[in-house]
Amino acid sequence: MLKAIGASFGIAIGRALVISEEVVEIKESKVVDSEREIARFNNAVEEAMMQLEKINKDVKEKLGSEKAEIFEAHLFMLKDPEFIGSIQKKIASDKFNAEYSLKTVGDETAAIFELMENKYMTERAADIRDVSKRVLNILMGIKIASIAEIQEECILIAKDLTPSDTAQIDKTKVLALVTEIGGKTAHTCIIARSLELPAVVGVGASISKIKDGDLIIVDGEEGLIIINPDEKTLNDYKAKKIEFTESKNQLLKYATMKSNTLDGKAVELAANIGSVEDLESVLKNGAEAIGLFRTEFLYMSKTALPTEEEQFETYKSVLEKMGGKPVIIRTLDIGGDKKLDYLPMKEEMNPFLGYRAIRLCLDRTDIFITQLRALLRASTHGTLKIMFPMISCLQELRMAKKILEQCKNELKSEGVVFDENLQVGIMIEIPSAALISDILAKEVDFFSIGTNDLIQYTTAVDRMNEKISYLYDFYHPGVLRLIKTVIDNGHKAGIMVGMCGEMAGDTKLIPLLLGFGLDELSMSASSILRARKTVTNSNYEDCVKLSVPVLSFGDSDEIKEFLKVSTKA
Amino acid sequence: MLKAIGASFGIAIGRALVISEEVVEIKESKVVDSEREIARFNNAVEEAMMQLEKINKDVKEKLGSEKAEIFEAHLFMLKDPEFIGSIQKKIASDKFNAEYSLKTVGDETAAIFELMENKYMTERAADIRDVSKRVLNILMGIKIASIAEIQEECILIAKDLTPSDTAQIDKTKVLALVTEIGGKTAHTCIIARSLELPAVVGVGASISKIKDGDLIIVDGEEGLIIINPDEKTLNDYKAKKIEFTESKNQLLKYATMKSNTLDGKAVELAANIGSVEDLESVLKNGAEAIGLFRTEFLYMSKTALPTEEEQFETYKSVLEKMGGKPVIIRTLDIGGDKKLDYLPMKEEMNPFLGYRAIRLCLDRTDIFITQLRALLRASTHGTLKIMFPMISCLQELRMAKKILEQCKNELKSEGVVFDENLQVGIMIEIPSAALISDILAKEVDFFSIGTNDLIQYTTAVDRMNEKISYLYDFYHPGVLRLIKTVIDNGHKAGIMVGMCGEMAGDTKLIPLLLGFGLDELSMSASSILRARKTVTNSNYEDCVKLSVPVLSFGDSDEIKEFLKVSTKA
Repeated sequence: MLKAIGASFGIAIGRALVISEEVVEIKESKVVDSEREIARFNNAVEEAMMQLEKINKDVKEKLGSEKAEIFEAHLFMLKDPEFIGSIQKKIASDKFNAEYSLKTVGDETAAIFELMENKYMTERAADIRDVSKRVLNILMGIKIASIAEIQEECILIAKDLTPSDTAQIDKTKVLALVTEIGGKTAHTCIIARSLELPAVVGVGASISKIKDGDLIIVDGEEGLIIINPDEKTLNDYKAKKIEFTESKNQLLKYATMKSNTLDGKAVELAANIGSVEDLESVLKNGAEAIGLFRTEFLYMSKTALPTEEEQFETYKSVLEKMGGKPVIIRTLDIGGDKKLDYLPMKEEMNPFLGYRAIRLCLDRTDIFITQLRALLRASTHGTLKIMFPMISCLQELRMAKKILEQCKNELKSEGVVFDENLQVGIMIEIPSAALISDILAKEVDFFSIGTNDLIQYTTAVDRMNEKISYLYDFYHPGVLRLIKTVIDNGHKAGIMVGMCGEMAGDTKLIPLLLGFGLDELSMSASSILRARKTVTNSNYEDCVKLSVPVLSFGDSDEIKEFLKVSTKA
Repeated sequence: MLKAIGASFGIAIGRALVISEEVVEIKESKVVDSEREIARFNNAVEEAMMQLEKINKDVKEKLGSEKAEIFEAHLFMLKDPEFIGSIQKKIASDKFNAEYSLKTVGDETAAIFELMENKYMTERAADIRDVSKRVLNILMGIKIASIAEIQEECILIAKDLTPSDTAQIDKTKVLALVTEIGGKTAHTCIIARSLELPAVVGVGASISKIKDGDLIIVDGEEGLIIINPDEKTLNDYKAKKIEFTESKNQLLKYATMKSNTLDGKAVELAANIGSVEDLESVLKNGAEAIGLFRTEFLYMSKTALPTEEEQFETYKSVLEKMGGKPVIIRTLDIGGDKKLDYLPMKEEMNPFLGYRAIRLCLDRTDIFITQLRALLRASTHGTLKIMFPMISCLQELRMAKKILEQCKNELKSEGVVFDENLQVGIMIEIPSAALISDILAKEVDFFSIGTNDLIQYTTAVDRMNEKISYLYDFYHPGVLRLIKTVIDNGHKAGIMVGMCGEMAGDTKLIPLLLGFGLDELSMSASSILRARKTVTNSNYEDCVKLSVPVLSFGDSDEIKEFLKVSTKA
């Protein structure tokens, strides 16, 4: 039995298909006719582009355009005259064979990206290796039994899965994913979750204990892999699997229900989205609102800053599809770990404590104004609320609001209509904002507590940093007290207080959050039904009673235990 | 008149000595006798090493061994067989002249360090360029009128001053420093402050307005440079300069005074130190205690982890020199921006939110135990208090205390005596710790609020990041409220609450901090007299009255203004 990181819920039982890292040796050799060799290389590139176009199209249809972006990146690289040109030049001047020239240039380019010690650049390095490998395989006539060609049901076991690998997965054949490396935020996990395939990642070296053809059980919730289980275990898990599917089906009835507690307290269950494509799942799961539209993906999927018109169309489309339900759109939160190719920024020593989000927007008012104008113009097509991220002090909020007013005046003088009653709110994700939330509450229409960042800053922990992520803790009593303070301060000023971090979708915490008084919980669409089940089965008065002693506990383990016992009782 | 960053207090009036960047062209040429060329190169290296040994010795005597470390680093590089070997190899194999070979290898090596996007590595790159330049000058027979050879009084104007430059400064000749680049934490500033020379840094391109021989005034407090002032301005500043000197002399009387307010409330004014050498200034300025001994410098100045014996000697020496006055020694705070050459750590995306301080010590208990044993053994030689840094939750504190208990038991069983009543405290520098300070207070003997980090985390601002350091704000109402909470929680539990960040030495804030109830203020030794003047001229009851309304302000500018008006009145 192996224990690792459960990355996507569900139980799978099946045979292991171990995808070994093929070691293809690339030999250096000289060619006589370099022109012919270049032609051979160009043909392989053409072929690779055709493959990529097809995958791109398939993925777009199956998983949405956001997931397909990676293949556009690969296509983009194959169209990059500098990259392709360097390889052609190497063939022409040094008379090396195409394989060797490609491998050398590809490795060099990837190495440069890797040197940059930046997550975004490291990912680009992976892309280069990935796309080089594709062209190499074509050149060498290697027809890897690609994941798309899998004929029998199996559980994929791999060191890591490249984006192209995961995009080829056929859900009727692949039952689950198990990888040696990766954390909860790895690409494999995101794909696994959107395909609703159980996945366990970060297994480490002991993954070699799984042999091709082994019967294995994967428990994506507990992060467990059981190799060649005995009869009893197998039967237990078969039962568990049925139970999981049943409970998943039963959840469907919550799609059309109201989010009221047993004693009639209404709470809004909203969804976090990153693109228009995400709305399908939002509507299917019956979200009552969009609690967070992360607009940075709109910027990240372009090769230049999106125009006012492009943004307007996107916002309008989201508002219309939500048919009058509230939609909170967060202004650009770029910086930190999110970079734009076309907006080069100085490398920072601590990007999470750096130039990002509202800090960037208040500096680059050109970018900010374009977005605000697009938002205002779209506001007549539904119920739009604008939210500013990373507010740390009163001055920033006032500056942002002032710029918004300027945009309104501009539009008025242009005769453009917008929703005059449009609400403006802020993310509470920096401790200093939480600590003066009584003051900030008087100047906004709503708060949304962004727990992902709030916990990082409050505990001084980068949750992506494996070495210390154990300190990143939803149950830290200091974090919970801060959340309670923000809710109380918001309510004292008569404004709505929501939450849009991952914590909001955690059913173990929802009773406590209800007890604290949260008005809205915004989460990934796939968590809504489970959350609604919890809400509709909770008694608000009990939740309030439960929440009081939590504020005096000093230790997160105590709190976890207390909640476990109290919510079961 | 130019306005930039005031980096070191004081006023200077004198002639500008503009140190222009000499552009020395290095020509590529081939030599016939490469062995002779290597010998020429080796001689130049020898000569450079002699120069460095001398500077190293001078600086050690004048400024202490910590300031001399940089020259040891330079010497170390000249002794590095890989670096020197690559240059010799280049001369031998390519038959290039020594100058060109040195320049090429030096630039390449520096470029590699620079690529690493890490402050420590970038500094190493500067070291390589610095030491290469020294050898180059020797090779080319260039006798730059080195700063050490300045004969007349002058104000140095430079793009930047290298550590070797600043180390050669003769205080009787150089009246002030002005540099184009650099921030408050730059090397130039640290040296200027320890030499008590006025300095203005970060002047930018407009520094070119200062011509060699211009009469200029430098105001290191306001960050002002006045070029060729008129008669009236000159006389004004002459008066100001006298006033500054007088007030500095007057401050000396505070060295032997008690730190009591006018109405008799006693507060402890303590010093922050990094090494035994700092104690001279501590004693001269009449510090009542050591509020923070940063032990990481003890680790950074070695080439391997300091042994228990080495540490014991250092701690004992500090305790003895302080003659029974309290000495708070902080356990190792390595990580973040402080690295150890001999303890390679994984590059982190956000080192300030990463694996550092107590997090590292609880993981590397071998390092922790060695330090705790050394501390315990030294505890009988004075009044030692042990302080743990970067505590974020109760569990960490309990683990650290448990390991300390183990060390005590070990020593007991070995028959080694230690102070059984030794106090144990923690830094409050992470918001989550401040938020549960009521709980933590019950398990420690004292708190020391580390404002430098506390402000960074509370406001999500890396203060070293020029782009957003304007948000790093002593006066943020959220920060002030958090500090007040910590003080109140500490006092409710009956423990001492001190402060050891830069804020503690800011005379504009001291009345407020007194009003909040702080028991101890720990600062750099050179700030103590000014602080004591403020304390002894304050009325505690007034400070308390003053502090109350501050907690309801929402805007830091308001608070700043309010304090300015109230403390003047």
